[in-house]
Amino acid sequence: MCKTCGCSDGAQTRITHLGVAGGAAPDTLESSRDAPGRTHHAHGGAEPHSHAHPHAEPKEGAHLVSLEARILDKNDRLAERNRGWLAGRGVFALNLMSSPGAGKTTLLEKTLAELADAFPLAVVEGDQETTHDAERIRQAGCNVVQINTGQGCHLEADMVAQGLQEIDPAAGSVVFIENVGNLVCPALFDLGEAARVVILAVTEGEDKPAKYPHMFHDADLILINKIDLLPYLSFDLERCLGYLHEVAHHAEVLQISAATGAGLEPWFAWLRAHRERTLSEAGKMLAGS
Amino acid sequence: MCKTCGCSDGAQTRITHLGVAGGAAPDTLESSRDAPGRTHHAHGGAEPHSHAHPHAEPKEGAHLVSLEARILDKNDRLAERNRGWLAGRGVFALNLMSSPGAGKTTLLEKTLAELADAFPLAVVEGDQETTHDAERIRQAGCNVVQINTGQGCHLEADMVAQGLQEIDPAAGSVVFIENVGNLVCPALFDLGEAARVVILAVTEGEDKPAKYPHMFHDADLILINKIDLLPYLSFDLERCLGYLHEVAHHAEVLQISAATGAGLEPWFAWLRAHRERTLSEAGKMLAGS
Repeated sequence: MCKTCGCSDGAQTRITHLGVAGGAAPDTLESSRDAPGRTHHAHGGAEPHSHAHPHAEPKEGAHLVSLEARILDKNDRLAERNRGWLAGRGVFALNLMSSPGAGKTTLLEKTLAELADAFPLAVVEGDQETTHDAERIRQAGCNVVQINTGQGCHLEADMVAQGLQEIDPAAGSVVFIENVGNLVCPALFDLGEAARVVILAVTEGEDKPAKYPHMFHDADLILINKIDLLPYLSFDLERCLGYLHEVAHHAEVLQISAATGAGLEPWFAWLRAHRERTLSEAGKMLAGS
Repeated sequence: MCKTCGCSDGAQTRITHLGVAGGAAPDTLESSRDAPGRTHHAHGGAEPHSHAHPHAEPKEGAHLVSLEARILDKNDRLAERNRGWLAGRGVFALNLMSSPGAGKTTLLEKTLAELADAFPLAVVEGDQETTHDAERIRQAGCNVVQINTGQGCHLEADMVAQGLQEIDPAAGSVVFIENVGNLVCPALFDLGEAARVVILAVTEGEDKPAKYPHMFHDADLILINKIDLLPYLSFDLERCLGYLHEVAHHAEVLQISAATGAGLEPWFAWLRAHRERTLSEAGKMLAGS
């Protein structure tokens, strides 16, 4: 979709449904997106509609502005459709974002182990290449679909729509959408999630919220991860919390170690509470507000 | 330039020349890029030419393809101009890339301390927001310009052209271009550098070269950083080197700790050797090859 960062329409997004360990073999779909509004699905997905209107005057500036508006508008409309689909089905979905290697998949492994018996769980995995993360999630016994973005730098709403169709989550499920590891671009793309969770690893340094404010600004929850490594780093936690206070106005902040399990209880409690709230609100969604 | 990842023409790139510690106050230029081929410079820079040709038929698909080609072609042409400018002046420039917080600025601080007496050094700093990194470089006594990309996810050749004009590097200099912390998008944008250096921190996990191959594929040098933390991590160095071997076909690989200084001698030697080679080849550049 984005024409210069590599997430272009010809970027060859691949979607692989791994199911759960012991189930059927992975099923890979290739989706080459040649033009806005035209998405080729190997099998049934949420087909986006094109509302493109060619302009009478082919002036370049006007075309660029209208192209940008169309692309973002298209993603936002598809994101709202995802939001409606999730609410209609009674599913709580969250968008999990961070730099590469901040601990998203490790956190999911620990979370699946804790909550698998509490309610149904599923994962949509985003990576440029490989199914490494989806294999890890599958080994943890969870229903998972891998989206490979090729050169693309973020997930978009239409990819998530296909992923949701594949995993077919049951009512009452929690769906974790693990975005491509990138502290910049994913912030700008609504996927239809009910909540945004951003992980900041202490190994990245305390000033990342100030340097990459867009990612933190709209977060609902920020997990400061890898706190087990604090004794070996010069990370200034107070300064980090100060930067977060400046840019993340409504986010809760928790300190955790996904690797050791430290601090994960408040995260599990947050998940349970937000799942309950989202599901109780979902029924009212079409009625107004 | 990129219309959806936030690095759009209206993303309000800001360029701040900090000079060196004890020098004049920072000088900030605002550069709002409204349309391809039209870059407003607050003062003299390398002005790009527009070669846009409106199409007779305003078909959407055709417009998208030609727009993408024009944007990438424009960056590549400006990158070649930078390459010529650097060669003509006798300056060795490298493009330093990594995830956020992988240690780029710490490495530069250590490098400036070691090599400041050997030859002139300068730094072009790229970040979405703040001048934190440029302040650190300035404190280290080095000539530095900060480029803030706003919502943008990578540096582009025209930003670097402006930065180079600002720092005005002397013949024989080494210029470090510290890109925006992002393991995805910067890989696609030639800046005119003579070499690409990619840092991978062991805290990010050993599979990042497989998951983000585009960044590693064109690297000339890969620095595996934060090796002082290996005793506290489950990082598998052999697997990491295996992944690098698969995707980075011509890169040298060094293991370092920018924080402790471990393993930095081979990096300094690499810099000296590549500076010498680049400067000796620069004179032949216009003659052919």
